[in-house]
Amino acid sequence: MENTLRTQLQSAIRSIPDYPKKGVIFRDVTTLFGDADAFSRSVDALVEPFVDKGITQVAGIEARGFILGGAMAHRLSSGFVPVRKPGKLPRDTISVSYELEYGEDRLELHKDAVEPGQKVLLVDDLIATGGTAEAAIKLLRQLNADIVAACFIIDLPDLGGADLVKSFGIPVQTLIEFEGD
Amino acid sequence: MENTLRTQLQSAIRSIPDYPKKGVIFRDVTTLFGDADAFSRSVDALVEPFVDKGITQVAGIEARGFILGGAMAHRLSSGFVPVRKPGKLPRDTISVSYELEYGEDRLELHKDAVEPGQKVLLVDDLIATGGTAEAAIKLLRQLNADIVAACFIIDLPDLGGADLVKSFGIPVQTLIEFEGD
Repeated sequence: MENTLRTQLQSAIRSIPDYPKKGVIFRDVTTLFGDADAFSRSVDALVEPFVDKGITQVAGIEARGFILGGAMAHRLSSGFVPVRKPGKLPRDTISVSYELEYGEDRLELHKDAVEPGQKVLLVDDLIATGGTAEAAIKLLRQLNADIVAACFIIDLPDLGGADLVKSFGIPVQTLIEFEGD
Repeated sequence: MENTLRTQLQSAIRSIPDYPKKGVIFRDVTTLFGDADAFSRSVDALVEPFVDKGITQVAGIEARGFILGGAMAHRLSSGFVPVRKPGKLPRDTISVSYELEYGEDRLELHKDAVEPGQKVLLVDDLIATGGTAEAAIKLLRQLNADIVAACFIIDLPDLGGADLVKSFGIPVQTLIEFEGD
């Protein structure tokens, strides 16, 4: 079953060599999202350990984490909280910077998005170095959220992001790994 | 029931006066998305007419349409197709410009996102003048998609967007109207 899902996801994810630059293989999940069965099974597999765990919000990272996170929140009958790029949220926000290969970027969260102690699942399509996930964790912890786990379809283990998230004491759930990326 | 949902949505949506500029009331759906019951009922109400209608893809407009559309696609056991801002999709795209109050913007769609004749639901959180919806319709029709309907939580009827979408022969489903916006 596990292996069947992995095989299905491996063929549903489109690998694009030398994108966005030479030597990088981009893992394109739009083909997975567009495949009804692969999308449905991915969402179900990501939420499965957390059904009946009292999750109050799924926090999705802009933008592909919104697609997955919206589906997961509906499946769990929880709320959805957007973790957004700068300047996109209309009310008072908190903000955390993170490093990019060149320069830095920022993520923002509404100050009233989560109440202290609420049980939050963090989600994005892919974890690489973990920089954005780390920023999202810092934001949610500033609001004293209880981050139950972080969920990603794809893990690029060579880049260490999953280990970084675990170092914050947060369990990581992923569905497929691509090594050598 | 209808009125109960409307009343619930009216209180779940946060209205922000003079945002993003003086005289405009911004309708903030992040509070609705964060409210588990309001989010769940909104998704269920939007998909309800289309269950068993053979929808193959839900096309969501970046970025809030991703949250709703991901949930709707999962609920309908369909695929999800992102209609994105420029430069975000990794493979060959088609592109349509639309007018903003000052200047213009563009939406893009992967060329292979939809096959001819596939039944697509278009979704965004809100319809105002309908400029982005029109651009998304043009993109989907370039791929010969069968756009079954366009769904929005919020309609601002004074701005005419729903009528514009209907003028393309596409039914419009909305859950709540704010007049005078």
